[in-house]
Amino acid sequence: MRVFTLVFSLLITVATSQTHDDGAETINNSPGHSSSFGYTGLEGPLNWYGLDRKHNGLCAKGRYQSPININSEIHSGRGGISIQIPSASADFENLGTTVEVALSNGLLFTPTGRYNLAQFHFHTPSEHRIHEEEYPLEVHFVFKNPAGRVAVVGFVFEITENRRGNALFENIFSQVHKIASPGTSVRLNRLMFGDLAAHLESNPVYQYSGSLTTPPCTEGVSWFVSSKPLALSTKMFNAIKHVLKFNARYTQNALGEKNLLEVAASELDLASPELHEPVKHELR
Amino acid sequence: MRVFTLVFSLLITVATSQTHDDGAETINNSPGHSSSFGYTGLEGPLNWYGLDRKHNGLCAKGRYQSPININSEIHSGRGGISIQIPSASADFENLGTTVEVALSNGLLFTPTGRYNLAQFHFHTPSEHRIHEEEYPLEVHFVFKNPAGRVAVVGFVFEITENRRGNALFENIFSQVHKIASPGTSVRLNRLMFGDLAAHLESNPVYQYSGSLTTPPCTEGVSWFVSSKPLALSTKMFNAIKHVLKFNARYTQNALGEKNLLEVAASELDLASPELHEPVKHELR
Repeated sequence: MRVFTLVFSLLITVATSQTHDDGAETINNSPGHSSSFGYTGLEGPLNWYGLDRKHNGLCAKGRYQSPININSEIHSGRGGISIQIPSASADFENLGTTVEVALSNGLLFTPTGRYNLAQFHFHTPSEHRIHEEEYPLEVHFVFKNPAGRVAVVGFVFEITENRRGNALFENIFSQVHKIASPGTSVRLNRLMFGDLAAHLESNPVYQYSGSLTTPPCTEGVSWFVSSKPLALSTKMFNAIKHVLKFNARYTQNALGEKNLLEVAASELDLASPELHEPVKHELR
Repeated sequence: MRVFTLVFSLLITVATSQTHDDGAETINNSPGHSSSFGYTGLEGPLNWYGLDRKHNGLCAKGRYQSPININSEIHSGRGGISIQIPSASADFENLGTTVEVALSNGLLFTPTGRYNLAQFHFHTPSEHRIHEEEYPLEVHFVFKNPAGRVAVVGFVFEITENRRGNALFENIFSQVHKIASPGTSVRLNRLMFGDLAAHLESNPVYQYSGSLTTPPCTEGVSWFVSSKPLALSTKMFNAIKHVLKFNARYTQNALGEKNLLEVAASELDLASPELHEPVKHELR
């Protein structure tokens, strides 16, 4: 994905988030905070802190960062959470760093409270890994409660040999070629979430407290990742990958452990100068 | 991929590399240098230097590191290089960090000299990105010349809708379920490389001087990456991904630019302490 200023997506968020409390406690970017980020070189995840030292400190120093490798230490359980999203039409937008469906009519129920849907968006390859394994695509349904707390429900996708993917997402991805450029959008009709809600309720869900996977990498995000992949056709995988290109943050350290960038920095401090040997770089 | 000590793979390398000059100039690990690495947490790419400060300095400080995002600044050309690999049987081995075909009978011809095949192995997802886009799989054919210089020929794969992938690799991947555990191997028969050689010669090839993508991240590696993906069936993609799980280093900085870990370290040094705000981490 190309770098794209967040101003555009923030305008959209503001325009569509009448149901949200955007007070001081809100976990998202505020409209006054405009920064750009990407997934390549100095705009990429290793330098998100460098792009905005004032706001992105947790990207380099947070110890409860997402995405993680989901291993046996992560709690999983069946039931306890559910989503209710009425069938709807919605805008499908290319934000430069992801493609997003702006749909605020939906609810997440958890043991500790109710959240309102803000949007859902995609990452390729998957951001979470499950027992070390990565998946070709992941969707994040982002919810907020009136106090501004964020909960995200994630599903990974697995490419199916029989060509028949999950109907909801095949419907969505069939339109993705129309929003190949950042800033473009298309209207999606007849989005139906019943099967997805059933999928979430009928399979174990991994639960942990992590962070946003994009700047400012805010922590305190309640993550719910379904253990069972959704089916994705080869055709639609290629279509969405061609637009997303690559937009996954690297796997973070285990929850509670030192941020991997802090680890790297402390190593470099201790390095002896004689390790910097000159090396020839010409292509022979 | 699980962490796995390199001792095992080094024994294999030594046992099968009679044709190589293993003198002081050799770019590979020497048998006396045993280190382990992986792709998760403290064993992962951000901490490869920390795993072995004596040998892995370039992983954190090198400025010509691979893999890169291949953009318009990378030279591409048709012709000029070719491979000749006789049809053969070979062992297909799970080294813990990758799966590898040990086949030393093969040649690479470049404008500046001839190299001998050492082995080829796989990464998922692709390590190189082409114009920002990532691919689900990449193969690296590793060659060395008698002076110990390394050249790698890489191909990315694209999943095909018609179920028919490249015959050579479909043949290989059909056996990958037999080497699901590190340390196991299986004999492959009738490997035919004619189509691959033709593919390489009939499409533009990106060329640059970079590094090994695994510790010790040695630089001075001549990279040749075919611009045209090979076809991969969905069935075989799922089969090899299930064994490899995830073994791609993150995209490095542009060639000649400061190592991204050095960039991150310099930012952390400059950070003000007040950015370390306490954050609640319970799952609500």
